Amino acid sequence: MALKSWLSIAADCHFSLANIPFGIISTRTRPTPRPAIAIGDYALDLDQFSTHNGFAALSVIQPHQHVFSDTTLNAFAGLGRPMHTAVRKYLQSVFLETTPFPDILKDNTSVQEACLIPLKDVKNHVPMQIGDYTDFYAGLNHAFTVGELFRGASNALQPNYKHLPVGYHGRASSIVVSGTPVRRPLGQILEDPTAEIKKPILSACRKLDIELELGAFICKNNNMGEPIPIDEAPDYIFGVVLLNDWSARDIQAWEYVPLGPFTAKNFASSISPWVVLSDTLEPYRTSGLDNDVEVLDYLKEKSKNNVYDIKLEVELRTSSGATTTISRTSGRNLLFSFNQMLTHHSITGCPMRIGDMLGSGTISGTEASERGSLLEQNRNSKTVIKLEGGEQRVFLEDGDEVTIRGVCIGEDGLRVGFGECKGNIIPAVSI
Amino acid sequence: MALKSWLSIAADCHFSLANIPFGIISTRTRPTPRPAIAIGDYALDLDQFSTHNGFAALSVIQPHQHVFSDTTLNAFAGLGRPMHTAVRKYLQSVFLETTPFPDILKDNTSVQEACLIPLKDVKNHVPMQIGDYTDFYAGLNHAFTVGELFRGASNALQPNYKHLPVGYHGRASSIVVSGTPVRRPLGQILEDPTAEIKKPILSACRKLDIELELGAFICKNNNMGEPIPIDEAPDYIFGVVLLNDWSARDIQAWEYVPLGPFTAKNFASSISPWVVLSDTLEPYRTSGLDNDVEVLDYLKEKSKNNVYDIKLEVELRTSSGATTTISRTSGRNLLFSFNQMLTHHSITGCPMRIGDMLGSGTISGTEASERGSLLEQNRNSKTVIKLEGGEQRVFLEDGDEVTIRGVCIGEDGLRVGFGECKGNIIPAVSI
Ligand SMILES: [Ca+2]
Ligand SMILES: [Ca+2]
Ligand SMILES: [Mg+2]
Ligand SMILES: [Mg+2]
Ligand code: NI
Repeated sequence: MALKSWLSIAADCHFSLANIPFGIISTRTRPTPRPAIAIGDYALDLDQFSTHNGFAALSVIQPHQHVFSDTTLNAFAGLGRPMHTAVRKYLQSVFLETTPFPDILKDNTSVQEACLIPLKDVKNHVPMQIGDYTDFYAGLNHAFTVGELFRGASNALQPNYKHLPVGYHGRASSIVVSGTPVRRPLGQILEDPTAEIKKPILSACRKLDIELELGAFICKNNNMGEPIPIDEAPDYIFGVVLLNDWSARDIQAWEYVPLGPFTAKNFASSISPWVVLSDTLEPYRTSGLDNDVEVLDYLKEKSKNNVYDIKLEVELRTSSGATTTISRTSGRNLLFSFNQMLTHHSITGCPMRIGDMLGSGTISGTEASERGSLLEQNRNSKTVIKLEGGEQRVFLEDGDEVTIRGVCIGEDGLRVGFGECKGNIIPAVSI
Repeated sequence: MALKSWLSIAADCHFSLANIPFGIISTRTRPTPRPAIAIGDYALDLDQFSTHNGFAALSVIQPHQHVFSDTTLNAFAGLGRPMHTAVRKYLQSVFLETTPFPDILKDNTSVQEACLIPLKDVKNHVPMQIGDYTDFYAGLNHAFTVGELFRGASNALQPNYKHLPVGYHGRASSIVVSGTPVRRPLGQILEDPTAEIKKPILSACRKLDIELELGAFICKNNNMGEPIPIDEAPDYIFGVVLLNDWSARDIQAWEYVPLGPFTAKNFASSISPWVVLSDTLEPYRTSGLDNDVEVLDYLKEKSKNNVYDIKLEVELRTSSGATTTISRTSGRNLLFSFNQMLTHHSITGCPMRIGDMLGSGTISGTEASERGSLLEQNRNSKTVIKLEGGEQRVFLEDGDEVTIRGVCIGEDGLRVGFGECKGNIIPAVSI
């Protein structure tokens, strides 16, 4: 049964009492970024809440309240999952209709005034200081469809694909928060990729695409040289956000052999601002895609339910205002879990650091309406994507706005949502 | 003519008065890392030097002396190249035999005692906080030899190779300073890569290799969305270090198609501790390798002298103590300059950040004795590398120590050196 709060929270609100996602906010009157949670239509400013003795009834956090004055969530994340559990449960109890601590907030209008800020008045920031970002490729349906387009069905997947979570190091400096405009990149492209002599031009990207992904943040350091065992991997995963891994397909096609995507991916990656904690997602665990290959022991998890049933959708709004949901799929469309990605990442002894982000890879279902990139939807430019109101697209045009949404819906209709990951395309700089 | 110092500096010392490289040190009695320069057999502790009014005769630095209390060089680097020039010249003048400021240090034994620390008593640290690390592949001879080994001479280089500096995002968290032991990584490898059914095993790496590279540190941020013009690129390059990009060839072979090297490179990358400033390297500019392709305008530099004539060598010392110089080559063996790498990296608008590091790619000459990786020297395991004293190697064994050295030698025999980049191989963790 849904927990009821004294705060008015709409039934379809992503930020229900069951959620309590963490982010970094600032306001016009107080521009210093600081931690907050989202609840209903409000942010609870945790720096102010802490200052106003909001944590008076949670003794374990008291020696650590400085983490709520930081400009990122790294220090809070670094307190470890048991502390995340304690803080989330405490905040839920504070907002509960029948809260045991009414003096903290429910009956305390001056603390409410100091700490509860309407979300519409809040500016969001990238919630973590991200040391390294690694993007995986665990969306089997995406990998298969793209492989099929370029190499045919029988060679669609590389021999390694089902044995290990394929991934590559990404660019941390260009991770931006939802709402940040994305400039169309310049780069080297081939006007005629079939010509015998390959002669690139410098051009604005002509095949600008999205990738619907999930991102996971790391909350624990391992020692360099020491792999993270798969059974310990959950201790390292702070929580999950929505991720749009913008991709320049034409730049990628020319540059990526043999060392992988580089400038095709380094201009922007957008994430949703509120980190939904691993704890919160526990009830929505489910099994991922079947792997018909037996993975090596170090990648074997005890539970088959290692991914999340998150309902995902991608909306495209053109500059005319026409809005089309171009994809609906689920977070279960993954061959490997974040636990497996993390364990594989560190099998060499690679040091993982608090704040690092792992991208899942593009999440697509098997149907046309479930594809998480335009490349799949347009069959590598062979077809057009029809939009509401008669417009059509192959790839993104200037002025387009893409919004990813994600929400878990429990048996009782209870929502645990991620909010939005939004970005609009602004024109390339002139050459 | 060589500048003469009142401090005794050996003629073959890397850290001559003409050099003045910057690093981060700590000592047993004072474990907090802080900036220093290397000169002769000493480090000059810049935090102490600043505290003892060492910068009294350099007014431009005075409002910024806080940078010498930081634990990385990022803040100093961020002051910009004109300030690096001023500080280096000032420190040279302080150490000059005929210094105009004898009271600062030359005739001031108490300041000498407080600030000059024998290098043997100093612990070095990674000098910059590295947000992102990108490794390029601009060593044409390396790329050609490796390509030839795997695909034959006519397909050795990919069509894109001469048009753009091929690169990939690397792992920043595992960059370590010279002297840090390197643990042999575990990973997935194929015991029989030619078998029709590819079935990997988990194993300690059996083909552990080095890559002789140079690293360049960034000292200026560009705005996201704004490419760095090639003529402005020099303003962004703080200085250069030696880089050993340790590589697990067997892990790489299995994992790298289609998204590039990942775990094969993420376990460790070693750098020399002292950053030789861009200014210092100016006299050693020379032309790189000829490009028989005309690059696009955005990559064209005014000067052909866009790389550095750094004499590089790789020494291998086995656990028996036998020491062999296995490679001697030059920093001019590059097809693209750091300026070109940076401009290409940011052509999409990718935000470059102070502290980011660019790797050059493996530097090899055309002769067998000039190859910067074991893969090239053993012709992909076809031959053995003969060492002094009768031992031989294909790839690295546990207990091996690899040392890279680099030095520029001027017409007058004057040395500007990088010191050493050293790492020894310790056994893999047990599976
Ligand atoms: Ca991706
Ligand atoms: Ca390399
Ligand atoms: Mg990083
Ligand atoms: Mg980074
Ligand atoms: Ni300053």
